[in-house]
Amino acid sequence: MGYDFRMNSKIDKLIKQFAKLPRVGGRAAQRITLALLQDKTGKTVALGAALIDAAETIRPCGICGCLTDGDNCEFCRDASRANGQLCIVRDLSDVWTLEKSGVFSGRYHVIGGLLSGADGVTPEDLNIASLPARLSDEKITEIIFALPNTVEGKTTQHYVMSIIGNKNITFSELASGVPLGGDLDYIDDGTLSIAFGGRKQI
Amino acid sequence: MGYDFRMNSKIDKLIKQFAKLPRVGGRAAQRITLALLQDKTGKTVALGAALIDAAETIRPCGICGCLTDGDNCEFCRDASRANGQLCIVRDLSDVWTLEKSGVFSGRYHVIGGLLSGADGVTPEDLNIASLPARLSDEKITEIIFALPNTVEGKTTQHYVMSIIGNKNITFSELASGVPLGGDLDYIDDGTLSIAFGGRKQI
Repeated sequence: MGYDFRMNSKIDKLIKQFAKLPRVGGRAAQRITLALLQDKTGKTVALGAALIDAAETIRPCGICGCLTDGDNCEFCRDASRANGQLCIVRDLSDVWTLEKSGVFSGRYHVIGGLLSGADGVTPEDLNIASLPARLSDEKITEIIFALPNTVEGKTTQHYVMSIIGNKNITFSELASGVPLGGDLDYIDDGTLSIAFGGRKQI
Repeated sequence: MGYDFRMNSKIDKLIKQFAKLPRVGGRAAQRITLALLQDKTGKTVALGAALIDAAETIRPCGICGCLTDGDNCEFCRDASRANGQLCIVRDLSDVWTLEKSGVFSGRYHVIGGLLSGADGVTPEDLNIASLPARLSDEKITEIIFALPNTVEGKTTQHYVMSIIGNKNITFSELASGVPLGGDLDYIDDGTLSIAFGGRKQI
């Protein structure tokens, strides 16, 4: 490992903390640590304070599951997004991907994972139980599933449809264009736009 | 840019802070932020606290220029490293590279940059002025230059030799094996070991 050697214990610890983050290897962790330790613009303290503040104040929105520092998130507070459409996604990063593409302007519901027998993920592990009440509270008329196009994604989608039942709600899923086995995160905006526009009723 | 869109301002700010770090792009910054915000093991507060503590306590060693949280660094405090050899490097990351390879067991002197007319780096910008006093204080008998094999590296090396003058000290530079234009950071340990073993008197 590029970062495993005897040196100042505080610096060593910091490198190891960075190396544990996603998409950061040992050598990048060294570079990041060195840059932050040599910075004279206050960047390091600012990042440290932002992390502590975020850990203390950022929580899942009680309505949709997006992360926020308020009682409810920006999407749930924004009345202009109450257009009757609810987009169900696995993760907050999928919300970010959709927001960046600009193809959707309704509300989100972040379920936080996918049902999986292999990984032992059951409905109780997901943010699903509150969904039925949301549909009447917010007068939802269309549910758009933007889950990964995988067995787990489809299984989860069918489970969610089954607990909602027949409530005069239109169900949609993204049109083909989403590559099989693909994560929403890796799709370009153009493809995502086509997939959204061509969503088909189930 | 993958991270430039409307969302929670605290999260947005955190992503932007990570995206400014070396070797972290916009998408990696998103992933890192999301992982830290969703972590339930205290990792985020720990990293934040470590950064603030590091920014407040880590300083360049007054003797050699390595970063440390003590009065002097681990290398300068370690009497077993007072073997008369002094290795001059540009940056702390070069120290880490050499330590990892295990080819050197003397003391270091981190000059913090290279002389460069183009970039306007003058001797006053580098940690060089304290060097002559160090040589007698620590009874240095050999100075090993482990600077980049570039015009700037050689210019800096010659400048350092000129201010030290004739003091019965052997000067060495790394043997060929260091690729032309190459940073120490990217050399494998084997090559580095050959270069160290085959260092030649100047």
